[in-house]
Parts: sequence; C-alpha cells; structure tokens
Amino acid sequence: MHDHKETIQRLKIAEGHLRGVQRMVEEDAYCIDIIRQIQAVQSSLNKISTRILEGHLHSCLITAVKGDDPNERERVLLEITEVFEAATKV
Amino acid sequence: MHDHKETIQRLKIAEGHLRGVQRMVEEDAYCIDIIRQIQAVQSSLNKISTRILEGHLHSCLITAVKGDDPNERERVLLEITEVFEAATKV
Amino acid sequence: MHDHKETIQRLKIAEGHLRGVQRMVEEDAYCIDIIRQIQAVQSSLNKISTRILEGHLHSCLITAVKGDDPNERERVLLEITEVFEAATKV
Amino acid sequence: MHDHKETIQRLKIAEGHLRGVQRMVEEDAYCIDIIRQIQAVQSSLNKISTRILEGHLHSCLITAVKGDDPNERERVLLEITEVFEAATKV
Repeated sequence: MHDHKETIQRLKIAEGHLRGVQRMVEEDAYCIDIIRQIQAVQSSLNKISTRILEGHLHSCLITAVKGDDPNERERVLLEITEVFEAATKV
Repeated sequence: MHDHKETIQRLKIAEGHLRGVQRMVEEDAYCIDIIRQIQAVQSSLNKISTRILEGHLHSCLITAVKGDDPNERERVLLEITEVFEAATKV
Repeated sequence: MHDHKETIQRLKIAEGHLRGVQRMVEEDAYCIDIIRQIQAVQSSLNKISTRILEGHLHSCLITAVKGDDPNERERVLLEITEVFEAATKV
Repeated sequence: MHDHKETIQRLKIAEGHLRGVQRMVEEDAYCIDIIRQIQAVQSSLNKISTRILEGHLHSCLITAVKGDDPNERERVLLEITEVFEAATKV
C-alpha cells in the first residue's frame, strides 16, 4: 500500500497551494504567474498519483495476479492500462 | 482579463474536490479510484489555466504588442511560449 | 504480448503523418495547423504506448509476479511506475 | 517565423527515431524500452511545437494584433488558446 499518512500530507500541501492560487487571483496577480502556480500544483499531483500507483502495484496487483480469479486479474490489469492512458491526457 | 469571480469559483471547486480525495485516502478507498479523482482535478485545473491564458491574451498581450517597448513585448511573448512548453509536461 | 503487426502498422501511420508535417513546413503551411498535426501524431503515439503497456501487463508482468525472483518482480513493478510517471510529463 | 530548415531537420530526426521504434518492435525488444523510446519521440515533438508557436507569436500574432481587423485578431488569439488547451491533453 502507499503510505496513507504521507499521501494525505502531500494532498494537504497541494490543497494549501491551490488556496494560495485563489489568493493570487483575488489580489489580481499577474496571469502568467497564476498559470505557473497551477502547473506546479499539477506537477505535485502527478507525483502523488505515481506514488499511489506504485503502492497499488505492490499490493492489489500482486494479490490479483497470484489469485485464482481470472476476471479479477483482468479487471486490475485493465484499470492500470486505463489510468496510464488517462495520464497521457491530463 | 479572465473573470476573477468565475476563476475563484472554479478554484474553490477544485480545492473541495482535492479535500474529497483526502477523505478517500483516509477511508482507505480503492487506489485506482483515488488516482482517477486526482486526474479529474488535474483536468479541471487545465481548464482553469486555459481560461486564464485566454484572458491574458486579450489584455496584457494586446497591450504589450501595441505598446512602444520592444523588451516588454518580447518578455510577454516569451512567457506565453514558456507556459505552453510547461503545459506539454504537466 | 501486444500484437506486433498492428503496432508496426500504427507506427508506420504515425511516421507517414510526421512526413506529412514536414511537407506542411516545406510548403509554408499555417503554424497553428502544423502544431495541431503534431499534436495529432502525439495523440496516436499515446494510444500506441497504451496498447504496448497493456500487452506488457498481460505477459511480462504476470510472469514476473508469479515467478520466484523477488528482485525481478520489483524491477518490473518499478518500470511500470516509471513509465506512468513519464507519461504524465510528455 | 520559426526557422523552417531547423524545424524540418528536427522533424526528420523524430521520424528516424520513430523508424527505430518500429525496428525495436520487429526485433521483439522489451516493451518498456519501446514505450520509453516513444515517450522520447513525444518529448522531441513537444519541443518542435514550442519552437513553432514561438515563431507564430513573433510573426502572425503581432501582425494580427497590430492590424485593423478585430475578427482576424480574435481568431488568432482563439487559436493560441486552443493549442494551449490541446497541449495539456497530449
């Protein structure tokens, strides 16, 4: 499993970062600086997703592949393919 | 300019979405579902950045291109190039 | 395994598409149209990568997870994590 | 304008890279290595798009913004917004 405590900590930091972006908009900060901060939040979210996927591979995936249920295994492999495909688009 | 009120509203929604992701982690939700929700937040942030850029093009960019200062114009064009390049990476 | 014949076919189409982009540049086509065609090629490449990953999960990954070598298994899981992380950046 | 000669040169390199990927598939190379090479091609294409956009901003955009036709100006600004939005998705 991914480390829940660390994941939550990182999500809280991203959330605080996003609140900072709201303040920038309220204070009429320069558009390009706002876009750069949003891109920084997205970069943090990419790292968080990667850590969660890493945990998933080391737990659910191993269980599913070693398990007896071919449908369950297929489902887990398909999901990983799907989030990979989505990752190329966000 | 981009519509500040709407931008802040959208950022608040993204922030709430991100808090929802934290709850999912705390409640031990399925990893893949968490990743999908993070990807949904990123997709919302892409839309917000695009709207802010659109506003920037219609205000600061026009002012800089019509203005008398070639350095200022160059700076604004370079910044747009940079956020485009960064957009291909987040 | 991914279907080699289909993968090669799709890669050939992407390659032809990229040669078309070169012709556009030579014939001085409109910049934005060129960028859009490059983005279309990248979208095709995303689909190809996804199909290859899908094949990988159904072959090498299953072999590694069911196998006796924990280092090999770890290596395969790490690689998938890495290409996922890279996918969020290209 | 972007430097046509350099752009074509870079596109030819990307095309050669993509032919190399086809050979890897034919020679049954390791899936992950193939995906990494495809990601490298996409990264090169991002750089090429960025250079083309940079040229576009310094030529067509300036002409349109300084010109007398508000519809033409609007069209050019909208197109830049659109390729930015698409860039966040490929």
